[in-house]
Amino acid sequence: MPRTQAQKIIDAHLAEGVFQPGAEIALKIDQTLTQDATGTLAALEFEALGLSKTRTEVSVSYVDHNLLQTDFKNADDHRFLRSIAARYGLWFSPPGNGICHQLHLLNFARPGATLLGSDSHTPHCGGMGMLAMGAGGLDVAAAMAGYPFYLSCPKVLGVRLSGELSPWVGAKDVILEMLRRLSVKGGLGFVVEYFGPGVEKLGLAQRAAITNMGAELGATGSIFPADERTRAFLKQQGRERDYAPLSADPGAAYDHLEEIDLSRLEPLVAQPSSPDAVVPAAQLGGVKVDQVIVGSCASSGYEDLMTVALALQGKKLAPGVSLSINPGSRQALAQVAAAEGLASLLEAGARLHQAGCLGCIGMSQAPATGSNSLRTFPRNFPGRSGTKDDKVYLCGPEVAVASALAGHIADPRRLGPLPQVPPAPPVRPEALVPPPAEGSAVEVLRGPNIAPFPQLDALPEELSCTVALKVEDNITTDHIMPAGSQVLPLRSNVPAISRFVFAALDPQFADRAQALAPAAVVGGENYGQGSSREHAALAPRYLGVRVKLAKSFARIHKANLINFGVVPLVLDDPADYDRLQQGSVLVFHGLKSAILSGASQVTAQVEDRYLVLRLEASQRDRQLLAAGGLLNHIKASL
Amino acid sequence: MPRTQAQKIIDAHLAEGVFQPGAEIALKIDQTLTQDATGTLAALEFEALGLSKTRTEVSVSYVDHNLLQTDFKNADDHRFLRSIAARYGLWFSPPGNGICHQLHLLNFARPGATLLGSDSHTPHCGGMGMLAMGAGGLDVAAAMAGYPFYLSCPKVLGVRLSGELSPWVGAKDVILEMLRRLSVKGGLGFVVEYFGPGVEKLGLAQRAAITNMGAELGATGSIFPADERTRAFLKQQGRERDYAPLSADPGAAYDHLEEIDLSRLEPLVAQPSSPDAVVPAAQLGGVKVDQVIVGSCASSGYEDLMTVALALQGKKLAPGVSLSINPGSRQALAQVAAAEGLASLLEAGARLHQAGCLGCIGMSQAPATGSNSLRTFPRNFPGRSGTKDDKVYLCGPEVAVASALAGHIADPRRLGPLPQVPPAPPVRPEALVPPPAEGSAVEVLRGPNIAPFPQLDALPEELSCTVALKVEDNITTDHIMPAGSQVLPLRSNVPAISRFVFAALDPQFADRAQALAPAAVVGGENYGQGSSREHAALAPRYLGVRVKLAKSFARIHKANLINFGVVPLVLDDPADYDRLQQGSVLVFHGLKSAILSGASQVTAQVEDRYLVLRLEASQRDRQLLAAGGLLNHIKASL
Repeated sequence: MPRTQAQKIIDAHLAEGVFQPGAEIALKIDQTLTQDATGTLAALEFEALGLSKTRTEVSVSYVDHNLLQTDFKNADDHRFLRSIAARYGLWFSPPGNGICHQLHLLNFARPGATLLGSDSHTPHCGGMGMLAMGAGGLDVAAAMAGYPFYLSCPKVLGVRLSGELSPWVGAKDVILEMLRRLSVKGGLGFVVEYFGPGVEKLGLAQRAAITNMGAELGATGSIFPADERTRAFLKQQGRERDYAPLSADPGAAYDHLEEIDLSRLEPLVAQPSSPDAVVPAAQLGGVKVDQVIVGSCASSGYEDLMTVALALQGKKLAPGVSLSINPGSRQALAQVAAAEGLASLLEAGARLHQAGCLGCIGMSQAPATGSNSLRTFPRNFPGRSGTKDDKVYLCGPEVAVASALAGHIADPRRLGPLPQVPPAPPVRPEALVPPPAEGSAVEVLRGPNIAPFPQLDALPEELSCTVALKVEDNITTDHIMPAGSQVLPLRSNVPAISRFVFAALDPQFADRAQALAPAAVVGGENYGQGSSREHAALAPRYLGVRVKLAKSFARIHKANLINFGVVPLVLDDPADYDRLQQGSVLVFHGLKSAILSGASQVTAQVEDRYLVLRLEASQRDRQLLAAGGLLNHIKASL
Repeated sequence: MPRTQAQKIIDAHLAEGVFQPGAEIALKIDQTLTQDATGTLAALEFEALGLSKTRTEVSVSYVDHNLLQTDFKNADDHRFLRSIAARYGLWFSPPGNGICHQLHLLNFARPGATLLGSDSHTPHCGGMGMLAMGAGGLDVAAAMAGYPFYLSCPKVLGVRLSGELSPWVGAKDVILEMLRRLSVKGGLGFVVEYFGPGVEKLGLAQRAAITNMGAELGATGSIFPADERTRAFLKQQGRERDYAPLSADPGAAYDHLEEIDLSRLEPLVAQPSSPDAVVPAAQLGGVKVDQVIVGSCASSGYEDLMTVALALQGKKLAPGVSLSINPGSRQALAQVAAAEGLASLLEAGARLHQAGCLGCIGMSQAPATGSNSLRTFPRNFPGRSGTKDDKVYLCGPEVAVASALAGHIADPRRLGPLPQVPPAPPVRPEALVPPPAEGSAVEVLRGPNIAPFPQLDALPEELSCTVALKVEDNITTDHIMPAGSQVLPLRSNVPAISRFVFAALDPQFADRAQALAPAAVVGGENYGQGSSREHAALAPRYLGVRVKLAKSFARIHKANLINFGVVPLVLDDPADYDRLQQGSVLVFHGLKSAILSGASQVTAQVEDRYLVLRLEASQRDRQLLAAGGLLNHIKASL
């Protein structure tokens, strides 16, 4: 049967299951990437597995998010990650090199491989013809240990490209058109696969910009064929040996099909505050722009920056407009300088920043109150810029530069003939640090804010635990594990961050749970809704919470509970919720056996009464619970 | 009588007094500069004067300090300053252009003129042969209004330079040698004046680096002659018309004389944590370096950056060393790119940042815990880097690059022949915004955190005020007006920041003072010691405090009290301190007349008793007090 590109890669990497959309499968992971914001915890988790070396083809630790260094913590994190990389055989990319996805595409991505990254824009490297997916830090730590990645087998959404982009229309307009058509939910459960005669008209950076923002469609991944342009790109990077062709078989069937005639696209803009609020740039001429930023993992390569530089040549920014340039990589910056693009940028009045994520993750570049900001970023969720009530518009570099010159959102086709971007100069200022041949003697350097990952023990057969807290319906992960400037910097320090569990609801919770341990928490409906943060499962577990009982659980929080060995039990009888109080003691007999047996119910004794509690979990989930969490499970399986 | 350079400039600018060291003089100010950290309050103060335009030859508002923009406040400040500049006839330098002192030297400084800047490194432009001095924001606002600058007439410290610097020895080594000899107090009360046959061997950037760090000697200013090199520099900048020669008359006498044979200097380093803890770099070979930064107003011009770039050519940084490059100006960055220095920097692994102050004022680039940081900055006070217990070493670009290559502090002479820095490419990517011809219609743009400067009324003849708080000895300005991340961002919002006055000692103070207004505060010995912050006088005044009574006052705080119209009265009789309590009512009859009369004592009635209080103030101080502060005084004199 003819296969899609996605199926070919999945088939070649199946560790468990078969290619059947919706079924659970496990995939062998060839490459991993982490960035510093999620990477420190992933590093601690990997370290806790006790391996001497990563077990992937290549794993890279990038520093690109937390570059501000307003106190010791960022620099300590960078140093810690550098030492972890040397110790365990990862490549390390120090701060200033650029953005993980841009660098990975240039230096490591290869067609046909799988890549798992602890960053939602990991699908960027799908432009290279690889299956590149974002995941939580724990999943990436597991993949670094050679453990397969479990996911629901995706459907495949085919996008047939024909024609060729008109002058001043770019890759960003392709993905904005996809978002306009399908919305930010349109890719859920799919890998988006591009094919057709239009593909060969797109360069690798363009393809990657499109797959990058597949994340905004909610897709599991996005993928382009690997063809002669892919080979040429790899050759230019000195990596032609990494080339392998990839394309769908003729007649391959898609679960959903879109067709895009590239020649009919026009310059598009996503309005505040969703990437799918897309309209033609020409319709927004009345929108004054105060700030324009070219950068982010989606649009910060040589071609992006040179397009801007050439359009600015001999011109000046509109009065009052701030144009920031965030290079995506050291290489792109050096190439632009070699091609004399930097002079045009500086002479026009642009503000040149260090290579990195910067404003795209709200680390600097916040716009002024009530101002309009136009950015070549992938996201414009409300407040993400760092300014409440912000008004952030998204576009490609072409619309960005036209608008910076006009002072309002502008269709770049008004700029006249499209300047020809010269071929990228052969400049490759590598500053990637390879791992030493032997790392076992490398000392891992921790600062005072980096604590080893805690030991989590296996589930006992007999468990007697005390309810440390009873909460209402709709408790969010923000209630459980607050964010904010006081708490976030402690993300690499589980003992310290655990002091803040439930702090707003009950400042004594941490002390009480630790005194009672093992402890339980009782919740109402939709327990654990909101942000996917893993600490909301891990930190209570560290304090001694082994069981959570609730009328219902939010999906992601429940998965996180299982990953950290906290048993999520459903209170089907509302009367049981009423019966349980802070201080109630639950006694489970033969708990571990019951969980491993596959039983959908477990029983707890509370005083002289028995509660019947529902456990909804796959066989793999049950193994994780019995082991005391995913890390213990992997450790045992190694 | 033969005159020094300093005396010539002072004589030509005397508005009051005569050149006699120690006497109060008033100088006409030709040019002013402000930066954003101090400039927003200065702008509010200037605005409060009600003028339609600045009354200087040139005033420039630079944005270089607060570039992080982690929320709306920085960007609001930038926009506010831009609108103020257009409204009142200032030049504006937007963020990304670079550091005020570097830019001012390139674009505005001229020999023989006076420059007052709200930044302590304003003496940088002394390298151009001008009298350039740092001052508080209120003084600069007054100068912008054409009001003269009052100061104690300085003594002149002559430094005779002979010989020529050896290869790999730079301007920084000259000023570090001065600091080694004289200490951070050595320049107090002096203008430091360089002369002699060694002067012509130093370029303008070198001279400015030396005068810049005269601030670290505690000097009022530092000054170089204006000679043919000065003319050549101005010509290259398209400003030859600004040239005027300046030199001391033969036989001019100095209050103190130093002699430096440049050819005998060697590469020097200031050790943690004072700029005068100076030793030869060669003695510190055992000090491992983790971070090296080239930048700051002192060392970030074309020659500085190119020296580093050429030394790095074809080499790689030592493993684990982070080398950051902070360009001082858009021009320097563009020149380095045009001279192909950027490629060397990037290929060696350096991290290129936006032009600005950055780590030098602790806004980013904080080093890791327990690490050593080597910086070409002017200051290394403890914790200024953003990391507590930091270990910051200071040096010139030559030692910096040698150390970044070696991995430890290194004498750069080990690098072999000094590469010849090519003449600066004729690149001038101006991005300075001139004021419009007519600004009266320009709207001043405030964000929610920028409040107009409060109206402060004149001192009444009869004053009855209630003691709102009584405090002990040694109260600091930190007690009166705390700093910290919650308070500092409110510096452009006097009503908001006033809520924090005495907050740590008495959270009800602000409410009580406002309810009682006019109010008084009673203090012990050394009241108002510590930081010079103006808000410690202004914010209580805003709340209604008109009189402060203390056993003794710290000098700078007392001057600030007078500037904002708060009467500082000394309690010579300790029994009076004991008698006064919170709630005591002081009645002053004929207060204003008494103050203006020059009387050294004023009398207050407290219940049925009379207190005799001492007022130590010059005739000008008394006029300020009567007017209700300097701004009112200037307003009345305009």
